[in-house]
Amino acid sequence: MKKFTSVNDILSVKDLVSKAIEIKKNPFEHDQIGKNKVLGLVFFNASLRTRLSTQKAAMNLGLNCMVMNIDKEAWAIETMEGVVMNADKVEHIKEAAAVMGQYCDIIGLRSFPSLKDRNLDYSEDILNKFIKYSGVPLISLESATLHPLQSFADMITIKENWNKSTKPKVVLTWAPHVKPLPQAVANSFSEWACQSDFDFVITHPKGYELDEKFTQNATINHDQDEAIANADFIYVKNWSSYHDYGKMIGENHSWMLTEDKLKLTNDAKVMHCLPVRRGVELGDDVIDGPSSIIMQQVNNRVYSAQTILKLILENNV
Amino acid sequence: MKKFTSVNDILSVKDLVSKAIEIKKNPFEHDQIGKNKVLGLVFFNASLRTRLSTQKAAMNLGLNCMVMNIDKEAWAIETMEGVVMNADKVEHIKEAAAVMGQYCDIIGLRSFPSLKDRNLDYSEDILNKFIKYSGVPLISLESATLHPLQSFADMITIKENWNKSTKPKVVLTWAPHVKPLPQAVANSFSEWACQSDFDFVITHPKGYELDEKFTQNATINHDQDEAIANADFIYVKNWSSYHDYGKMIGENHSWMLTEDKLKLTNDAKVMHCLPVRRGVELGDDVIDGPSSIIMQQVNNRVYSAQTILKLILENNV
Amino acid sequence: MKKFTSVNDILSVKDLVSKAIEIKKNPFEHDQIGKNKVLGLVFFNASLRTRLSTQKAAMNLGLNCMVMNIDKEAWAIETMEGVVMNADKVEHIKEAAAVMGQYCDIIGLRSFPSLKDRNLDYSEDILNKFIKYSGVPLISLESATLHPLQSFADMITIKENWNKSTKPKVVLTWAPHVKPLPQAVANSFSEWACQSDFDFVITHPKGYELDEKFTQNATINHDQDEAIANADFIYVKNWSSYHDYGKMIGENHSWMLTEDKLKLTNDAKVMHCLPVRRGVELGDDVIDGPSSIIMQQVNNRVYSAQTILKLILENNV
Repeated sequence: MKKFTSVNDILSVKDLVSKAIEIKKNPFEHDQIGKNKVLGLVFFNASLRTRLSTQKAAMNLGLNCMVMNIDKEAWAIETMEGVVMNADKVEHIKEAAAVMGQYCDIIGLRSFPSLKDRNLDYSEDILNKFIKYSGVPLISLESATLHPLQSFADMITIKENWNKSTKPKVVLTWAPHVKPLPQAVANSFSEWACQSDFDFVITHPKGYELDEKFTQNATINHDQDEAIANADFIYVKNWSSYHDYGKMIGENHSWMLTEDKLKLTNDAKVMHCLPVRRGVELGDDVIDGPSSIIMQQVNNRVYSAQTILKLILENNV
Repeated sequence: MKKFTSVNDILSVKDLVSKAIEIKKNPFEHDQIGKNKVLGLVFFNASLRTRLSTQKAAMNLGLNCMVMNIDKEAWAIETMEGVVMNADKVEHIKEAAAVMGQYCDIIGLRSFPSLKDRNLDYSEDILNKFIKYSGVPLISLESATLHPLQSFADMITIKENWNKSTKPKVVLTWAPHVKPLPQAVANSFSEWACQSDFDFVITHPKGYELDEKFTQNATINHDQDEAIANADFIYVKNWSSYHDYGKMIGENHSWMLTEDKLKLTNDAKVMHCLPVRRGVELGDDVIDGPSSIIMQQVNNRVYSAQTILKLILENNV
Repeated sequence: MKKFTSVNDILSVKDLVSKAIEIKKNPFEHDQIGKNKVLGLVFFNASLRTRLSTQKAAMNLGLNCMVMNIDKEAWAIETMEGVVMNADKVEHIKEAAAVMGQYCDIIGLRSFPSLKDRNLDYSEDILNKFIKYSGVPLISLESATLHPLQSFADMITIKENWNKSTKPKVVLTWAPHVKPLPQAVANSFSEWACQSDFDFVITHPKGYELDEKFTQNATINHDQDEAIANADFIYVKNWSSYHDYGKMIGENHSWMLTEDKLKLTNDAKVMHCLPVRRGVELGDDVIDGPSSIIMQQVNNRVYSAQTILKLILENNV
């Protein structure tokens, strides 16, 4: 495996989830596989779960870790080609990425979208330039459009909570928020869910349609109550508009998931990638109640990262 | 040991100090005890000594370390119950603490007081919520009201400098400062000193009385010269008022400890937890002179932390 | 070796370069030499290459690393003697350095010049006080006037690209920039080049003369074309004026190194310490072309640091 930026970088969601569940049973079994190798974690944006879980995964494999908060500990990076660098950008991404590639065996990169220029964001400019210029395997720690380590952890979590032979009904529901958020988690969950053996439904207010390339096998329903009826899993997430790019369209407070709405479901488990705005996206009653499997998702972030790191260290798919 | 937040979390100061002195003799003897375990250091506030000494202590035990500067590398944390999170706080402490508990075997937490709301500060809200929601053993790296790793290091330092069979006279003296500081170091030193075999005196200008629950066995004297007469150890520290909460009451420049004042003592050793304002709290002559055992205190921060980490890793009291 | 702050701290550039080239052949051969020891990296200023390459070098030797961004993670440091610390500086450098010396076996220190007070900058005040008060071996990670780990890496890189028995012609050329930069890299490259078996030339617009103590055996030429004629290596670097201290004297755009100018040379290899302003200091064509050995310099930063760390750990010259 040379990069992990999307579900398209792997062969089978099902097999990958099985590998992760095996690793979770004995997480220190391969604690020498990373010896004398270095994982560089490069953050263009803030991070809590990803920062800690990926370090923990590296430690479990005996892999050294260097963390770089690029704008706080270094300087502003230029990304445009052929520009005369006479303003505030101190270093070009060509050099920054190549330098990190000289010191790291694997790079993990977090780079959020601007939410201003859709073409630029959806071109995954920073991510792709890091892949091109670093010359080493790269793991996305959430890019402008996708968050594959989160989605992989989500798939592990659903698997752990579903041992029936039938397909689970999995619903991704839009939730209200106080500011515009990226589409990355929603896009990513959708593309992984579409490649899993789910009855998969997406529900959101009109105007919040995701980029269709990530939702090919999903059923779209604009009526939340209808969508979540008989659901086995509900994934709650806000995102800003893809079509009216980066905008919020109305407040839609009624879309907050509450215990009352859960009564419509098949005793659904509730998922969220965190951070969550309590009382806005999700009611306290749901987060603190027995339906939540959110902390299990958090825990599985270690094993999604560890599985990918192990595959890269083994130079394996 | 499940938490280390106060002298009340241990059985005997004397025994704990003995353990630390044993560890200091051979600090790498247990360098495998932390293998495959992770200490997470969570800083809500700046830190130099605590940050480095606790990492060093972890390394001596083969314990992995992850450092999280919570407000710089992640985001603002909500601590109130039942609040609708529609303002600037991105994540609730319930989730933040629980997440860290998923990735860390032990958490070290630094969280200073506001100095505005005494009830809130003295409830140790953040510390107690981390204990409650993280689900793993927690070490205070200085909380709103106490700094137990510092006090433990101070007790080791006094022990190393006192081999007589009589009780040493130990004086905690208030010192001037340029801005209001927490009472944490003073409270903490007092509660550890009160449980040690000292003749223990606290001296400060009127109005700087500490919370009595930390000073039960101490003699209080508002005359500094009288208090330090025949002292064997003088601990110098500023704190703001507890009663007129968080305020400075006059400037009290004459309370700065100088070489002249030391002549009143029994050739007292001078202690300070650092950082120190030279020429304000302590004269340069004292800090740079032979009476100072400040760097020995600094050094012992490693062994106080290492002793506590070892006890937690051994699941021992 | 007790400090590495200048070429004057070593006995022979040639021997040191040979040691580094040996280490590079088998970088993990001594991966136990740093066991249970700690390198503290102290940054008063931003860093990318130095931060990562020095950590990587430490990892290769099994040496633990603690990184301290002094002004971001701790507080402002007072450096003046005898001052009453009643303003914004929280801790004196005497204590800060001594504290780090208690927790670290080796300290790496980055401290840039002010470019305002030449006497203060060229006294290397912060560096020398860290050496004096920390009490442990110190490595400069770029000081006010010198950048020895960079220069050492540069010498390794030239050696790797020159296997003739004749002396290479090595030219250090001033380049334009958009803001005043320190003289440190230029001073340092010059003092290392002057102690190497090079035909060494420095070229710059009038007014940019470096401090003569670093350029004793160098030929100075103010005509760039003449200077680079038949060059085998060209080192490109901006610096601000030493004589009109910290100032920029005119824009001198014509001094940017381009492919056209390279035609004057003996197929010269082009070097730069990075970060580089594309289109200002160097043309894109040169940076991205076959003459550049910039990434080899980057790579050799690991081996310059590793060689010095190993010598210090062996208590060797």
